[in-house]
Amino acid sequence: MPFRNRLTERLGIEHPVLLAPMDYVAGGRLAAAVSQAGGLGLIGGGYGDGPWLGRAFDAAGNARVGCGFITWSLAKQPALLGQALARGPAAVMLSFGDPRPFAREIHEAGATLICQVQTVAQAHEAMEAGAGVIVAQGTEAGGHGQSLPLTTLLPLVVEACPDIPVVAAGGIADGRGLAAAMTYGAEGVMMGTRFYVTEEADIDPRAKARAVAAGPGETVRSIVFDIARKNVWPAPYTGRVLRNATTERWLGREAEMQEHAEEVAADYAVARARGDFDVAGVIVGEASALIHDIPPAAAVVECVVREAEAAIARAARV
Amino acid sequence: MPFRNRLTERLGIEHPVLLAPMDYVAGGRLAAAVSQAGGLGLIGGGYGDGPWLGRAFDAAGNARVGCGFITWSLAKQPALLGQALARGPAAVMLSFGDPRPFAREIHEAGATLICQVQTVAQAHEAMEAGAGVIVAQGTEAGGHGQSLPLTTLLPLVVEACPDIPVVAAGGIADGRGLAAAMTYGAEGVMMGTRFYVTEEADIDPRAKARAVAAGPGETVRSIVFDIARKNVWPAPYTGRVLRNATTERWLGREAEMQEHAEEVAADYAVARARGDFDVAGVIVGEASALIHDIPPAAAVVECVVREAEAAIARAARV
Ligand SMILES: Cc1cc2nc3c(=O)[nH]c(=O)nc-3n(C[C@H](O)[C@H](O)[C@H](O)COP(=O)(O)O)c2cc1C
Ligand SMILES: Cc1cc2nc3c(=O)[nH]c(=O)nc-3n(C[C@H](O)[C@H](O)[C@H](O)COP(=O)(O)O)c2cc1C
Repeated sequence: MPFRNRLTERLGIEHPVLLAPMDYVAGGRLAAAVSQAGGLGLIGGGYGDGPWLGRAFDAAGNARVGCGFITWSLAKQPALLGQALARGPAAVMLSFGDPRPFAREIHEAGATLICQVQTVAQAHEAMEAGAGVIVAQGTEAGGHGQSLPLTTLLPLVVEACPDIPVVAAGGIADGRGLAAAMTYGAEGVMMGTRFYVTEEADIDPRAKARAVAAGPGETVRSIVFDIARKNVWPAPYTGRVLRNATTERWLGREAEMQEHAEEVAADYAVARARGDFDVAGVIVGEASALIHDIPPAAAVVECVVREAEAAIARAARV
Repeated sequence: MPFRNRLTERLGIEHPVLLAPMDYVAGGRLAAAVSQAGGLGLIGGGYGDGPWLGRAFDAAGNARVGCGFITWSLAKQPALLGQALARGPAAVMLSFGDPRPFAREIHEAGATLICQVQTVAQAHEAMEAGAGVIVAQGTEAGGHGQSLPLTTLLPLVVEACPDIPVVAAGGIADGRGLAAAMTYGAEGVMMGTRFYVTEEADIDPRAKARAVAAGPGETVRSIVFDIARKNVWPAPYTGRVLRNATTERWLGREAEMQEHAEEVAADYAVARARGDFDVAGVIVGEASALIHDIPPAAAVVECVVREAEAAIARAARV
């Protein structure tokens, strides 16, 4: 029995499973695979790279996909939104900044506005922006985010937004996570880390292998990689990555790291180009501890839905 | 339809809801109230205070309760275990240290050994100790703990211990939390913060009121209050409390705080005695954001079970 709810209806999808718009990692091939499996694939518009975005939509072919932007970055080059909307995306996700200035353009193009939030106050902004879907992102998430655990944030966002389907993100890698999210009142999940570790993800296989090998507690949330990449985010956002030589060296010494910014950034760029992930960042979250394989994305979607049904049925029986 | 599983059978209880053995806060009256409502009340043996423990068991009267100890502290005065076992507790919980040296005495007295763990490695120690129940405590928890979020730790502990009922702790304050824990494979929940904010909890009403008023993100995990109380814990344990003037002053400056330890401790003791919770610690977890009232403990047990049934049924319907 498939899940049917306001989320699947609003997005016109079969399964309540969304691909997080991971910048560069979620290219057209991965997004298309998730959509074709019945979920919704979001291309990682990220910081905004026009030519890459065009190629990603091309690679998605006829698949019905969406696209996501980092809002504070989009504000610096707002024309990218028009470029994305011209491709007729099913949805546009905005995260990390005020969505209201962009909402009208998205609504007028007929795309569903998805807002990812890290606090209840942001959920209120999302409602004002007319969001069709709200993603509550817990601190467990890979990549940028804030500090609230999903188990606190999710029920509060669900309570604050009774009229909008809420999706859970952060630390979810399997059907138990989807089932748990649903008991908190969410109607679906958005996963980044789980899809990072799939065949179609556009990322170095050595990075995927490290994510597979990672156990619990091997990620950390900090600003170390933003300094290393000379990519300063507005407070209070921090980024979760696997611990490696860079975090061991600089965690807790961020001010000192800033003083060596040029040198650090040069070393980092070399490591990144070489695929040396002792130095370069593997941007995944705590869900990596639950991941042990590198399947095709379609298998993830199917498996998550099947496991969630089983987990709910098991909980209902006892 | 009540929950019936290995946990309720093993502990001989009606509802899969356990009171955390919060030192001093979980006295005999609170423990008895939880047990009489169909859960299991654990008296907070804590750091070990023989006379207090005796009075707590007296106050529990004929109710079938258990008791919990801080393991590394119990190791310094192991005779307290005998004192507790002489009262015929249903269960003894050990947390924060190696349970194996105490296991035999507990088994021989016929009490169920409950081990609270913060890592998968500790779950293996608990199995070696012959634990009858394992509590997986996520970092969201009030009081002492470690850094893994419940959404990662819980499924890993369930997988590691297929033959032992696992209970979820940390950030759970209502039936949605119990339902979510069950979808992850847990068979019950242990709550501290939720019971801290009940009529029967042995704590200053002003502390309860602050916990009720707290919103999301208003707690922090640190060693600041251990320094302030001159109560040094073994690494890597830290304690979660509400943010207040003490955390604002000293967070990130713990080494400097240590240098002023005497002065800080004197001020702290005065504040504690006065009930000045701008300075003294309110030891609660992220669950405080989900708590809005100060009910009797029995109402909490009933409400959690009823809400969990509803949450699972709702998830199963979609
Ligand atoms: C490699 C990576 C890159 C990400 N990039 C973005 C991004 O560009 N924009 C965005 O809104 N979220 C981004 N995120 C966060 C996701 O939207 C999502 O919240 C997160 O992946 C969910 O947690 P999970 O990783 O535990 O599944 C990224 C996450 C990862 C892992
Ligand atoms: C005030 C307070 C005191 C605590 N004292 C103890 C203790 O003495 N021994 C122990 O094993 N756990 C103690 N804990 C932790 C609990 O066992 C439990 O893990 C925690 O309360 C669960 O998270 P929650 O507070 O979000 O419900 C304490 C928790 C609180 C809130």
